[in-house]
Amino acid sequence: MADSRDSSPEGLVSTNTNSKYPNFEVDYVISYSLPPPSSPSALAEAEASFTQLITLLSKTGFALEVRPGRPPTTPTSPSSLLIFLRIASHPLLEKQIYRYRVQDWLYGVRTAAPGPPNSLSQQEPITDAERLRLAYLLITKPVNEGGAGITPGLGQWRFVKSVFPLHDRRFNKQWIKDWSTKYILDDDDLLKIRNQFGEKVAFYFAFLQSYFQFLLFPAVFGAGAWLILGGFSWVYAVVNCLWGVIFFEHWKVKEVDLAVQWGVRGVGKIQLPRPQFKFEREGVDAVTGEIVKVYSPYKRLARQALQVPFAGACVVVLGGLILGCFGIEIFITEVYMGPFKQYLTFLPTVLLTIFMPTFTTLFTKLAERLTELENYETVDAHQASFVQKIFVLNFITSYLGIFLTAFVYVPFGKILVPYLDVFQLTAQKFTAEGKPLPTKEWVINPDRLRKQVIYFTVTAQIVNFATEVIVPYAKRRIFKTVEKVQTEIKGEKGVEWPGDAEEEHKFLQRVREEAGLDQYDVTIDYREMVIQFGYLSLFSVVWPLTGCSFLVNNWVEARSDAMKIAANSQRPIPWRADSIGPWLNALGFLSWLGSITSAALVYLFNKSGGGQLGVGSVWEIPGWALLLAILCSEHVYLGVQFVVRGVIKRLDSPGLQKERAERFAMRKELLERMVEEEVVSEQAEKGVGGVVDGERITREVLEEEARVHSGLGPEKVFWLRQRSAGESVEVGRGLIQLVSLANNNTAKRG
Amino acid sequence: MADSRDSSPEGLVSTNTNSKYPNFEVDYVISYSLPPPSSPSALAEAEASFTQLITLLSKTGFALEVRPGRPPTTPTSPSSLLIFLRIASHPLLEKQIYRYRVQDWLYGVRTAAPGPPNSLSQQEPITDAERLRLAYLLITKPVNEGGAGITPGLGQWRFVKSVFPLHDRRFNKQWIKDWSTKYILDDDDLLKIRNQFGEKVAFYFAFLQSYFQFLLFPAVFGAGAWLILGGFSWVYAVVNCLWGVIFFEHWKVKEVDLAVQWGVRGVGKIQLPRPQFKFEREGVDAVTGEIVKVYSPYKRLARQALQVPFAGACVVVLGGLILGCFGIEIFITEVYMGPFKQYLTFLPTVLLTIFMPTFTTLFTKLAERLTELENYETVDAHQASFVQKIFVLNFITSYLGIFLTAFVYVPFGKILVPYLDVFQLTAQKFTAEGKPLPTKEWVINPDRLRKQVIYFTVTAQIVNFATEVIVPYAKRRIFKTVEKVQTEIKGEKGVEWPGDAEEEHKFLQRVREEAGLDQYDVTIDYREMVIQFGYLSLFSVVWPLTGCSFLVNNWVEARSDAMKIAANSQRPIPWRADSIGPWLNALGFLSWLGSITSAALVYLFNKSGGGQLGVGSVWEIPGWALLLAILCSEHVYLGVQFVVRGVIKRLDSPGLQKERAERFAMRKELLERMVEEEVVSEQAEKGVGGVVDGERITREVLEEEARVHSGLGPEKVFWLRQRSAGESVEVGRGLIQLVSLANNNTAKRG
Repeated sequence: MADSRDSSPEGLVSTNTNSKYPNFEVDYVISYSLPPPSSPSALAEAEASFTQLITLLSKTGFALEVRPGRPPTTPTSPSSLLIFLRIASHPLLEKQIYRYRVQDWLYGVRTAAPGPPNSLSQQEPITDAERLRLAYLLITKPVNEGGAGITPGLGQWRFVKSVFPLHDRRFNKQWIKDWSTKYILDDDDLLKIRNQFGEKVAFYFAFLQSYFQFLLFPAVFGAGAWLILGGFSWVYAVVNCLWGVIFFEHWKVKEVDLAVQWGVRGVGKIQLPRPQFKFEREGVDAVTGEIVKVYSPYKRLARQALQVPFAGACVVVLGGLILGCFGIEIFITEVYMGPFKQYLTFLPTVLLTIFMPTFTTLFTKLAERLTELENYETVDAHQASFVQKIFVLNFITSYLGIFLTAFVYVPFGKILVPYLDVFQLTAQKFTAEGKPLPTKEWVINPDRLRKQVIYFTVTAQIVNFATEVIVPYAKRRIFKTVEKVQTEIKGEKGVEWPGDAEEEHKFLQRVREEAGLDQYDVTIDYREMVIQFGYLSLFSVVWPLTGCSFLVNNWVEARSDAMKIAANSQRPIPWRADSIGPWLNALGFLSWLGSITSAALVYLFNKSGGGQLGVGSVWEIPGWALLLAILCSEHVYLGVQFVVRGVIKRLDSPGLQKERAERFAMRKELLERMVEEEVVSEQAEKGVGGVVDGERITREVLEEEARVHSGLGPEKVFWLRQRSAGESVEVGRGLIQLVSLANNNTAKRG
Repeated sequence: MADSRDSSPEGLVSTNTNSKYPNFEVDYVISYSLPPPSSPSALAEAEASFTQLITLLSKTGFALEVRPGRPPTTPTSPSSLLIFLRIASHPLLEKQIYRYRVQDWLYGVRTAAPGPPNSLSQQEPITDAERLRLAYLLITKPVNEGGAGITPGLGQWRFVKSVFPLHDRRFNKQWIKDWSTKYILDDDDLLKIRNQFGEKVAFYFAFLQSYFQFLLFPAVFGAGAWLILGGFSWVYAVVNCLWGVIFFEHWKVKEVDLAVQWGVRGVGKIQLPRPQFKFEREGVDAVTGEIVKVYSPYKRLARQALQVPFAGACVVVLGGLILGCFGIEIFITEVYMGPFKQYLTFLPTVLLTIFMPTFTTLFTKLAERLTELENYETVDAHQASFVQKIFVLNFITSYLGIFLTAFVYVPFGKILVPYLDVFQLTAQKFTAEGKPLPTKEWVINPDRLRKQVIYFTVTAQIVNFATEVIVPYAKRRIFKTVEKVQTEIKGEKGVEWPGDAEEEHKFLQRVREEAGLDQYDVTIDYREMVIQFGYLSLFSVVWPLTGCSFLVNNWVEARSDAMKIAANSQRPIPWRADSIGPWLNALGFLSWLGSITSAALVYLFNKSGGGQLGVGSVWEIPGWALLLAILCSEHVYLGVQFVVRGVIKRLDSPGLQKERAERFAMRKELLERMVEEEVVSEQAEKGVGGVVDGERITREVLEEEARVHSGLGPEKVFWLRQRSAGESVEVGRGLIQLVSLANNNTAKRG
């Protein structure tokens, strides 16, 4: 290698080259947590592990620096060290990049094989994301594969609290500034995100952006429909479903397009092993002959079956909570007329606000445990299974309330009256004086549904925004203050750690801050968007302004998510992805379900249509008509989906064009090379009497054979009758002449 | 090339090597039709074209022989020549094989690149099918691509009536003998078919075999259901639908498996250009820069839109015919009591038998014309579009009658009564004497549906078998006799052609016979099987013995199809395929539709269930319940499909294992080669101070840097503080010691 003496990575780190190095050339920081001083045995363990950590990382090829992290302020509070890592040499990085690019090529992610290792950066710039991803893999992959084998938080490495790259503050500042001044993000913006944070995060923003642009239509059309048609319009329902189909199918194509443009199409095939995977035994793969870690698929299947009771429990507990609050709410707002009504109105909201997040957190924990139990071998399989559970959970918490109002409360309200009398009786017993509490007569409130949808599509979105951006910040501030106050009150003091060098102090303070931040989890953001899409698809026919609300919300959402990454989270590890993954199915499911609920809602609530249901009972409308409406709607939906899929598939996209061009170039090159080889071999042949012209050989060969004519089988003689193409032509023409004669004969005879 | 002097193909044609050469080593025969002697100008044209044909073929590399074909028996009857082709030289064949195997590899059909051309037969035996396919491509592909550019039947080559390989009589005899003595065909039987007739035909037999084996279950279960449960049992309906899903999903996997085993997975990507394609202009491909022939996709879309009126016309004409005959039949059998009733009963059957095939043939022609109009660039696209139309056509002719009985005649019978009075009145007017004809009162015949299903699933299958096997044979015999008689009556005589050489006479007679046979079209056989599957899926709940009938039928079917290929058709050109193609969608559609019709049939006709409909009217059962049954059934079906798909996907198959093993071997080899290169380059590096051990370099490099310490930026100084891993460890341990001190301090203080 020509430039192996040059150990500075300047040549490679193209996006980060400037004289200032705000990140001090650090690739990764390990936050190494130390147990509190009060447990010396754990401390000793941490020390031994630390020594091993440094040795392994250094052997793997990292340059290292250790600095103090959070000091132990009291004898019972934990502290931490900061370990700074940098890939020590340029050739090591090049080797890694080469190895992984070759792997990509072998798995079909890249069309062409990468050139020799020392010219990689000339072939294709090495982005921050690629370098950081490879550095992370180098830290985490097993020792026998050339890594350091560090598994953060697990087993021996349980003191390794987190491994994170440092934010590029200048990039982040520019990013937030750029985005807050433009309406539409273009491909270039997404490319920047991809180069900085990896494809996984970039795909989220790409999805958000695509969704945002598509929202323009339901926002405008919805506003028009709201003004002209009002709620429950079948025109709006049809257009909305159609929009859903087009958006979904468009995204599926767009996703592939982006994956190709970013050079990650098919990376799903390259699976990351999950370090937490527990194998039962080692076996030999029947096919490849490799030793593989095996976990009984039947055991896993049995554990996967636990998803059914899990979903059941979700429905029962969360559904019970919602139903209970729902009952109380209806009673208080629509039946109860006693004292404290103005305060009691808030009771269900308070109950929901307290119990819902508690239960949700609990169930999320349970989902995590369950997924852990299922013991997947790869990160993707684990993630997919987790997302599935999360989706079920969120489906219930988000939509069950509206489903109850739309399909139970309003249509079956009258049947429910006797049960609500229980409430009434209870309420009347409340007063000790025996004087009955004043109660209202039971009347179904048809406006309830609309109010509920507005709550979920406007209020809840704002609340969400607040919890996402403001709460973590406030929490951090409060936490800090509390800690400080606690320390002051206790009067205990830990140890003073040596101060930072003056020129490093500011940098180290920043790193300590980042070490304290949460890790960014893109799943949460996807969940939010998919659930939002669900409101639009399932219930927006109730209140067509939904689209407008979401349009505004999502403009803010993209920026607040950017803020969240830039300011409230550690810089994410730039993983790759070639799709939004399991959320795609969720999206398709919601879009399809929308065709059913929309039809049902329009049919039940449309006041100008046929079998409407103003404040009446479900028994007044023919059930078969409702079902027919649903059946038709669903099948029209499926038919339209089929057509849209067919049409969109035919459209070309820049990514696919790029891929085609690459494949074509590769094929052309290889075929040309092959033809060259052929020419060479043909020339070689000619020396020994090769075959070039059919006619000539036939004659030569046959003349040769004619000499040994006698004693040949009939099949040999067959091919000797006409010794050249010329002779064949003659024979054929002779026969044709004979045919012409037939005519002449007849003519003569006639 | 070592063996280029040996021009006989013995080394290559492994499956056909024996001393007898029953086919005289002929690869292809061209049947060249000559116009009748009465049109000399056409004859002259045919002669010119013939000369060109021979010249082109000879130049391309074929050895040729011309023999007389059918003589012109009269001055107005056409005659034909036979042109025998053989690839002249071994190297030419090798070159072709190499070229196409490389192409396969480039398109991902083969995992590994083929070795050098002269060792191909050692790498992988060359089957008859492969040789014949390449020979056919050599005949038909354009001159600038190295072929002869012959497009049978088109333009300049309109006298080329057919190009066909010769049957391997010995193989055929053994084949028929083998199959008629065994019940189940195994993979080896299919492999033989594949090697002889190519993957396209082999896939048909594989499908037929897979379907036959799966039929065992509905046959046994259906017989049981018929005995115990009777018709319209919901148990049978559920099991039948479930069976349909499993069969469909299983076949999808099996298909991929076979494609991999036969080495054709993904050949769909290599498209054959359609010679009939008419381009509007030549354009430059934006991506590849190649010159391509362009036809406006909008024009094509507009022409594709003609499919809608086509389907409409099918429904109206065929539906009208069926409806008309249906009406007449009902009237005659159930209302009419007048004279000739025993003869008139056959009237609708006669009408259907006359008009149905006429209209079907007409519409098939129309479908062909329409597909022609759509002007596809590739053979596959053309075929897919044609199959789509054929499926619509056959769906109507096959199922509409039963649909009418099940969902119109029986449930709405009572409403139809007044309309049938028209018949009654007409009938009564018939008699000139004014005496009213005796008519019966209108009673719905609930047994009609069962009879109809039995007709379609038993009688029609037998009739089908007869038309398929006996009719073509009889037709040929009659045709020959008629021709002979005609010639004798007219007394006219054509010309005598020169007699055959004695040792060739038998062979030539056989070839002349084969030249007169039809070409085998696998589409027709697929259509038959898919339509049959439809009866089972849609209507077998009416008569559960359907499965038994089909099981017997399909055992015969496989053998009669084999007979058809072996005795009644020219040997098919061995095209490749990686799937049953467009029929797969038709199969899925029928399976899905089955879930709806079964639910509806059980609901309407089950006599022991809830809202049954014995001979009653549809108004007596609640519509919502029927729709709910359909809705549930369909969604349960989709749910089950989802689950079955998931489960089947996880099962391993020999084909996929083979593919995995190949891919693994290739990756392993390449990675090993890469690692070797790395070792070499690393050794080279060491000479100039390479990077092997992280720690050592760090120290060396840093010591070097330390010399120029002054004037460095803070980020350089940062990395110079700890000059080795050892120092880092020391610093970290120092900090940890400090933490321990905190505890000691407190302990002392406390």
